[in-house]
Amino acid sequence: MKMKRTLLTALNLAFVLTFGGLAQAKSADPLPSWNDGKAKQSIIEFVAKVTKKGSSDFVPPAERIAVFDNDGTLWSEKPMYFQLFFAIDRVKALAPQHPEWKTKEPFASLLKGDVKGVLAGGTKSVGEIVMASHAGMTTDEFELIVKDWIATAKHPATKRLYTEMVYQPMLELLAYLRANDFKTFIVSGGGIEFMRPWTEKVYGIPPEQVVGSSIKTKLGMKNGKPVIVRLPELNFIDDKEGKPIGINSHIGRRPIAAFGNSDGDLQMLQYTAAGDSPRFMLYVHHTDAEREWAYDRKSSIGQLDKGLDEARAKGWTIVDMKQDWQVIYPHEKR
Amino acid sequence: MKMKRTLLTALNLAFVLTFGGLAQAKSADPLPSWNDGKAKQSIIEFVAKVTKKGSSDFVPPAERIAVFDNDGTLWSEKPMYFQLFFAIDRVKALAPQHPEWKTKEPFASLLKGDVKGVLAGGTKSVGEIVMASHAGMTTDEFELIVKDWIATAKHPATKRLYTEMVYQPMLELLAYLRANDFKTFIVSGGGIEFMRPWTEKVYGIPPEQVVGSSIKTKLGMKNGKPVIVRLPELNFIDDKEGKPIGINSHIGRRPIAAFGNSDGDLQMLQYTAAGDSPRFMLYVHHTDAEREWAYDRKSSIGQLDKGLDEARAKGWTIVDMKQDWQVIYPHEKR
Repeated sequence: MKMKRTLLTALNLAFVLTFGGLAQAKSADPLPSWNDGKAKQSIIEFVAKVTKKGSSDFVPPAERIAVFDNDGTLWSEKPMYFQLFFAIDRVKALAPQHPEWKTKEPFASLLKGDVKGVLAGGTKSVGEIVMASHAGMTTDEFELIVKDWIATAKHPATKRLYTEMVYQPMLELLAYLRANDFKTFIVSGGGIEFMRPWTEKVYGIPPEQVVGSSIKTKLGMKNGKPVIVRLPELNFIDDKEGKPIGINSHIGRRPIAAFGNSDGDLQMLQYTAAGDSPRFMLYVHHTDAEREWAYDRKSSIGQLDKGLDEARAKGWTIVDMKQDWQVIYPHEKR
Repeated sequence: MKMKRTLLTALNLAFVLTFGGLAQAKSADPLPSWNDGKAKQSIIEFVAKVTKKGSSDFVPPAERIAVFDNDGTLWSEKPMYFQLFFAIDRVKALAPQHPEWKTKEPFASLLKGDVKGVLAGGTKSVGEIVMASHAGMTTDEFELIVKDWIATAKHPATKRLYTEMVYQPMLELLAYLRANDFKTFIVSGGGIEFMRPWTEKVYGIPPEQVVGSSIKTKLGMKNGKPVIVRLPELNFIDDKEGKPIGINSHIGRRPIAAFGNSDGDLQMLQYTAAGDSPRFMLYVHHTDAEREWAYDRKSSIGQLDKGLDEARAKGWTIVDMKQDWQVIYPHEKR
């Protein structure tokens, strides 16, 4: 009886191996939300090239490091970075414990709903808002705060969860690269501990493959157990020149593929491009005012100016969101 | 004909599935260099517990993070940290370009062969030797320097390559954990960029899973290409309180298993132990003066004093190298 059942299983397996494979190979487009065109083609050609055994362009799996910016590359960043909405919501939630904020800037403006007034205060004001909302708790506590916010907070324009505003074509690209034994990393100017609580579920990227900006921490004790306490002091800015530094610190290998959308990613793309074996550099160009946002050279958030010139001069892949992406967000899928 | 061959393959497969598994399960000891005893048993029981589906102790693969100290835990550390031998060899190699070192301490003592004199100078002297040997080049150049040294330099007592002085039982443990879907990390007080060039080959641990001490770096240009330049300034000390900080920064998850050998690892083991699900903490106790070295409470390198007390009090696993390890180094294998 046992042998008989095993034989049946084996025959099933044989059938799947013989016919299943053919059917799948024919139908499976690894990037179904990408329209046919130069961008999609360049991705598929690069992956085919570096994974072809025996080819001079072959890259061993361990070296297939792909790095992705987050804001504007994997999810939207308008009208402002989503992490700033988090900081603002957090200050509002903490306000009852801080009566002094009613008369103290930049908190007073923020609590009156004058976000533009806060932003006008520049780095100093934004820094104070960020520290008030991101420091003063343990990393475990902060993780819960972020998880709660990301599960409930809605974008002011779309009224959708922020994690619904990730780019479907980029989700497919992440999965496609991983299916080809790439290791996918986020390298973002955003806070490393703001991203880690949800990137695994949303992007399939585990915490140890997230690189980002950080504040200082120290070891402390809480209820007799060691915890990590978040301090109101900047530690590292993972933007511009910081991106290659962060890559070296966390990954220790030069990536072979890099994906960004702004001048803040330019050094990361340049650093990637300077490697010896084949490299792939891609800029997401926000050209779709109807389905997402259209901006580049003159945007204060996600400015793409020098990067656009360099990408064109060097033949890097430029994704025209309007032309190249059949859908922007997952909910648009048919 | 085609179907016939596929059927044969399927039958072969069925046979292997039915009988092959049994044969293998009987013969394969995953830790052949570990003598039977409490230490070995505790490892195997822990792994069985957290990998058993449906059990309340089950830990999903993504959370199976295991962290290992390096010096004294994965390879020897006597008569002094191997990285110090590297620093000394490097200063000797650079001496012709630095005639001023002949009269300048601590270089003068070192070049005369008076290593004890250098060490007597304490942190300041050692720091100067480390910076002179570890900074002032690009990360790519440093990688080549380390690769060259590690492939050729010999230990003064054993006359073996340093990478031959890794612990065979720990190599088996690393492989055993990975075979059970653990992700293995090094978390060492040693230099992160001193370890990364060889840990993948020697331990199977890729650069992105190495956490260590570091000096500052900056983005620079060389021959028109972006490079990372190593600066003679401390960035992070991955020892004692630094180990949980380094784990949080690089991994972003509390490990479920931690392996060390000294008081410098105690905070890492305490931090691991404080997690909710089952945890495993292990100290390697250097008890074998004949095959390796015997030291603990009074050693200046690899001191194990408070850690030994706490391990005993809390029932952590303590490896008695003399009793528990059938062989120490790979070349002793029969």
